[in-house]
Amino acid sequence: MDQAIAPFDLVIFGGGGDLAQRKLLPALYYRHRAGQLLGSSRIIGVGRRELTRAAYRAQVRESCGRYVDRQDLDERAWDGFVERLDYLQLDAADGAGYQALAERLRAEPDHVRLFYLATLPELFAAICEHLAGVGLTGGEARVVVEKPLGRDLASAERINDEIGRVFREDQIFRIDHYLGKETVQNLMALRFGNALFEPLWRREWVRDVQITLAEQIGVAGRGEFYDRTGALRDMVQNHLLQLLCIIAMEPPTSIESDAVRDEKLKVLRALKPLAGDTALARTVRGQYRAGAIGGQPVAGYLDEPGIAPDSHTETFVALKAELNDWRWAGVPFYLRTGKRLQEKVSEIVLNFRSVPHSIFEAGALGEVGNRLVIRLQPDEGVQLFMMAKAPGDTMRLRRVHLDLDFSETYKVRQMEAYERLLMDAVRGKLALFMRRDEQVAAWRWIDPIREAWDAQAVAPKPYTAGTWGPAASSALVGRDGGCWYEES
Amino acid sequence: MDQAIAPFDLVIFGGGGDLAQRKLLPALYYRHRAGQLLGSSRIIGVGRRELTRAAYRAQVRESCGRYVDRQDLDERAWDGFVERLDYLQLDAADGAGYQALAERLRAEPDHVRLFYLATLPELFAAICEHLAGVGLTGGEARVVVEKPLGRDLASAERINDEIGRVFREDQIFRIDHYLGKETVQNLMALRFGNALFEPLWRREWVRDVQITLAEQIGVAGRGEFYDRTGALRDMVQNHLLQLLCIIAMEPPTSIESDAVRDEKLKVLRALKPLAGDTALARTVRGQYRAGAIGGQPVAGYLDEPGIAPDSHTETFVALKAELNDWRWAGVPFYLRTGKRLQEKVSEIVLNFRSVPHSIFEAGALGEVGNRLVIRLQPDEGVQLFMMAKAPGDTMRLRRVHLDLDFSETYKVRQMEAYERLLMDAVRGKLALFMRRDEQVAAWRWIDPIREAWDAQAVAPKPYTAGTWGPAASSALVGRDGGCWYEES
Repeated sequence: MDQAIAPFDLVIFGGGGDLAQRKLLPALYYRHRAGQLLGSSRIIGVGRRELTRAAYRAQVRESCGRYVDRQDLDERAWDGFVERLDYLQLDAADGAGYQALAERLRAEPDHVRLFYLATLPELFAAICEHLAGVGLTGGEARVVVEKPLGRDLASAERINDEIGRVFREDQIFRIDHYLGKETVQNLMALRFGNALFEPLWRREWVRDVQITLAEQIGVAGRGEFYDRTGALRDMVQNHLLQLLCIIAMEPPTSIESDAVRDEKLKVLRALKPLAGDTALARTVRGQYRAGAIGGQPVAGYLDEPGIAPDSHTETFVALKAELNDWRWAGVPFYLRTGKRLQEKVSEIVLNFRSVPHSIFEAGALGEVGNRLVIRLQPDEGVQLFMMAKAPGDTMRLRRVHLDLDFSETYKVRQMEAYERLLMDAVRGKLALFMRRDEQVAAWRWIDPIREAWDAQAVAPKPYTAGTWGPAASSALVGRDGGCWYEES
Repeated sequence: MDQAIAPFDLVIFGGGGDLAQRKLLPALYYRHRAGQLLGSSRIIGVGRRELTRAAYRAQVRESCGRYVDRQDLDERAWDGFVERLDYLQLDAADGAGYQALAERLRAEPDHVRLFYLATLPELFAAICEHLAGVGLTGGEARVVVEKPLGRDLASAERINDEIGRVFREDQIFRIDHYLGKETVQNLMALRFGNALFEPLWRREWVRDVQITLAEQIGVAGRGEFYDRTGALRDMVQNHLLQLLCIIAMEPPTSIESDAVRDEKLKVLRALKPLAGDTALARTVRGQYRAGAIGGQPVAGYLDEPGIAPDSHTETFVALKAELNDWRWAGVPFYLRTGKRLQEKVSEIVLNFRSVPHSIFEAGALGEVGNRLVIRLQPDEGVQLFMMAKAPGDTMRLRRVHLDLDFSETYKVRQMEAYERLLMDAVRGKLALFMRRDEQVAAWRWIDPIREAWDAQAVAPKPYTAGTWGPAASSALVGRDGGCWYEES
């Protein structure tokens, strides 16, 4: 049984929307079922639609029915959970309805108040302002926001300014759901709970780091949004850079929020700038053409609904980052992400250097180099690839792997990222949320890449749906003598 | 199929004895079955008994039937193997019979000649002299000898001198069968085939090393021999020190014989001397009393046949060794071996230091420290113990292990130590055999311990059969804040 947390009221702006129904409410159901929500905690959906409380509950029930594992849906837990659900009709842009929200919240003056802004960012300013207008933003109040937080440094700063006029930085919880994943947490545990990795975790022993976030889906249902955004903004600026930070950061003095975020910030600021020709040389943009995923034909990006027929938006990015610091100088961090790729996989690979000198007979070592593979998706786990003696009469080595499969090791259900992140927001634990200066540093590094691409005005390289992206992506790693890791 | 090796004649002095029947001939059968022996290779048993070739073959067949896995006994392989077997009646101490041996060998002048002296060491001098007398010791001839090679430095040197009068050092194969074990070979592969271990394999990261060779058997059938010998001579001087060498040695420039043996020699010479009070403080002697093994009552050592009723012979030794070198200064190497212990297990444990500072909340780390366990017996394998995040909402760590089980990974039969060692002897590969200077260095370190014990004239500490030895053994490790590893 997980530890119960202080009673709270969670107000979800966009309570009828996709994120709420698909992720937030199922996550809250699981936390309720785990006994972590105290009796009086409430979840208040807010939306423009007129909806009775009963109708909202029915709607949530239906979406939970879809997004919660059937075996986890038990009636008793459900009945308790539904009691927490409330609904308020409100035009977020219009101050008129906020008084009613304030009244409802003041019925529980001791509750921690959270406002989850699951709306378009264009509404953030108005929501914050109106919340402040009815006196809901002081003290323990918290606001939770999520990507897209801007399209570049300037627009991100504008949004942050708008929120920041009302909320202090320590009240603002910027979600990057990758940080809530169990394996990412485990990565912290592995790095800093074991003395074993520390001497290895540096330029002397690591040849390169590879982070892959590959999707099989296309732009399903959000073509217009995606076409304005592209993979660099959608995935690299946030998820990929955050994972890079966790791999590359120095040991923080504690896992207290700012200790961790200070170290991540140092990494972001240590990123060697990619601009102009350097940016073009060290990045690869791709856009998928028609192909097949799992044997099924799929359309090309330009034929998807909502996409401009001459769009230059990238659906794939591969890039080579480096860090200007003592630990990592000269070690390539290859990052890639894309849609319509061969597999759905999120993983981090550390390739260690070869032995400095082989003491074995020529050819005995075969494929050399140790490798640590940390899988985030689809199945979380850690594999350590090593060389061992092949059985038999000669000293010939072959690759073996030591496995740590979390789902096997722990025969219990694992928390989803949103469960952890929502509970941390209630607790006021900021460690897994991005601080403003982190976001600024990330955009500062991303913007010049974007600008270099725009200045070039060349279309992204086409790749066939169902492959690993353009050949230039392999060449990027190959030029340094390496190769993207592919499970064999 | 393993690579065939050059045709040879192997002459086994003591061909009807225990070692030949239990180990050597079954090993040769397996190598024959693996296709490694060429058509004309011969195995000639030599003994005092009058025995026809057919009777000898029948005797070998019977012992192979006992010591070879039933599933591995196929008739065709057997028929081929038996053709290689010959027998010669010979009084080893008497030169008279050697001419007949020489004639038999000269029938195959191109064969590599090996003389395996599976006799009492008292006969070695005579055998070598008589072999030389009939001209069998030159060129490619090799002699294979095994423990006990002396009781101390002086007697070992005497035996080595006797053999050395006839054979060059590069013709002498001193067997320590632990060096032939697949896992010991794998230890070399793991250490020097993976860059991963090198930065960890040193005083900065290793807290202590533990090597355990534990037997459940008593002195069954060899009481008189054992009572003159004791565990220090029988196990520590050879097997335990050899394993210590492989763990502690610097990377050799190659796995060529003398490159490896030079490095092992350096380790033996770096052992911090244990003499006088230091020897008494850092060693524990034990002798078993009646107890139970696996629920069955067993007799005490003093009640075993052949044992002097007031014997001070130790059946258990634990000691703390240290190395005077840059890599290992200050790191304790705890060695222990004994008879009638709780389990039959041979294993090497490296305990790594704890993280220098826990970034996690108090208590989150729980049991700390990484550990590498290399099991040689009963089932060979490698386990790496690490800390990982316990599932759930809090950052609490727990111990997990990454497993490399060789028998699972390689679904093929593994070579026994004697198979490997006999084939290496035929090939003239000396890497897995002890060089004379290694043996000298080992005795030089062992003798003062023995002398300190003898000077004290106190009986070994009693321990109950079926336990892990005297409490003083745990205290030896406990004084440094450690603990013998016990599988949990």
